[in-house]
Amino acid sequence: MAKRAVGVFDSGVGGLTVLKAIRQLLPQEDLIYLGDTARVPYGSKSAHRVLQYSLEAGDFLHRHGVKMLVVACNTASSVALPALVNRFHLPVVGVIEPGARRACEVSRTRKVAVIGTEGTIRSGAYQQTLKSLDEALIVCSVACPLFVPLAEEGWTTHPVTRMTAMEYLAPLCGDGVDTLVLGCTHYPLLKKTLQEVVGEKITLVDSAEETARRVAAILSANKQLRTTTGTGTTRFCVTDTPERFQRVGGVFFGAGLANVTHVELAHLDDESEITE
Amino acid sequence: MAKRAVGVFDSGVGGLTVLKAIRQLLPQEDLIYLGDTARVPYGSKSAHRVLQYSLEAGDFLHRHGVKMLVVACNTASSVALPALVNRFHLPVVGVIEPGARRACEVSRTRKVAVIGTEGTIRSGAYQQTLKSLDEALIVCSVACPLFVPLAEEGWTTHPVTRMTAMEYLAPLCGDGVDTLVLGCTHYPLLKKTLQEVVGEKITLVDSAEETARRVAAILSANKQLRTTTGTGTTRFCVTDTPERFQRVGGVFFGAGLANVTHVELAHLDDESEITE
Repeated sequence: MAKRAVGVFDSGVGGLTVLKAIRQLLPQEDLIYLGDTARVPYGSKSAHRVLQYSLEAGDFLHRHGVKMLVVACNTASSVALPALVNRFHLPVVGVIEPGARRACEVSRTRKVAVIGTEGTIRSGAYQQTLKSLDEALIVCSVACPLFVPLAEEGWTTHPVTRMTAMEYLAPLCGDGVDTLVLGCTHYPLLKKTLQEVVGEKITLVDSAEETARRVAAILSANKQLRTTTGTGTTRFCVTDTPERFQRVGGVFFGAGLANVTHVELAHLDDESEITE
Repeated sequence: MAKRAVGVFDSGVGGLTVLKAIRQLLPQEDLIYLGDTARVPYGSKSAHRVLQYSLEAGDFLHRHGVKMLVVACNTASSVALPALVNRFHLPVVGVIEPGARRACEVSRTRKVAVIGTEGTIRSGAYQQTLKSLDEALIVCSVACPLFVPLAEEGWTTHPVTRMTAMEYLAPLCGDGVDTLVLGCTHYPLLKKTLQEVVGEKITLVDSAEETARRVAAILSANKQLRTTTGTGTTRFCVTDTPERFQRVGGVFFGAGLANVTHVELAHLDDESEITE
């Protein structure tokens, strides 16, 4: 079991920031990454569709015999975790709970802001998770739909991105908020600009590293860490052709992407299967 | 045959600008609009995927007995027209040729610029069509991936949109270009800002009205115009849930969207069917 790969999925390139953190923390593990680039993005789609797509991604990784599922996408994590656990009987790690836990740890004012896609913010998943950790927390949130295309365009420190951030974040930064959760795996690319806009007094929380630590902790508890020395393999699968993924994704992974193959996902056409 | 509806499809809400023009020119026709919102956008996806999705959308409308297919999406028009004609033996109207023809008519300097999605610009469809109309035309083009999310965010005259337009359009506006083709059905929403940025000497060409005129001309030539008086019906079908389509789409259609139903498209899993 320890020899099996860790399966990671996202709608596209964003989850590569999480994969990068896992790769750094667990160099010996084999990793399979699935990017559903034929249907990206998930953030503007309905919870029902995101649930369906997440189950199909899970089916693909499960068929490849992974020992764990990592949902490296906030939108999918916000709607699909219970359904994935029910369906696959594997450890499933999402990105929301690790990020929320970290925010809860670092906030001194107990006022936390969350930014994410329309789907993630609408789901209320961060708000609920933060409240479950400390019901006295004051949580405010805003959807920032333009941050994903800005990050994919590579305009990470562009004046347009700064102006957009000022527009989105101004309402969040008053009233003693001291922690800002980057509730989308694309947002770490914009960290420098976001930090400048909100000021140094606000701590940005990026769930990638926290999620990697959770992955390591669960594998360790289950005695599923690979004990071999040497570096594990990293395999990338995408549902659209590899070209754009390779071009845009390198910045997110922090290295060139080799070993990218195009795959087809089996469709869950039976509505009765698409339930939590 | 004349009584049948005109079928119009797009990846999402953008094609509603074309539907609006058809509705205004041909008030007596029944119209069925299909927005593939479960897989939107097409503009950043590969030609092969867009071809598959377009054929599946065509299958849906064909099963509903339409008398004509209108491809109200530049990306789909740029890669799928010949395949749609081959498959359905129906009149098929795309948005590229009408827009290109209009640009060719209005340009005096014979220098034309085209903007669109990554997929549309990469396909070279506008460049080829313009050259086929007048091989002496000088054509330059640039992909503007941020314009779609800016239009959907409703930031049509926002300073961020103006700054983004300056960045994208500056390289196109020198050297005597006098015509700018809006090669994406979202861009007419940004017309005011784009016109300000490029200046009054450059004519913006929006293919929606030209496309509607082409639809009318073909129906007339084929004796398929409805001759009944009274207003035809407009039916909207979407592949994701209707909420976001209704919320965002109203601005594109210029009126509230009633009669929106969720539909499923049959998947073309047989690769041999996905060919031009």
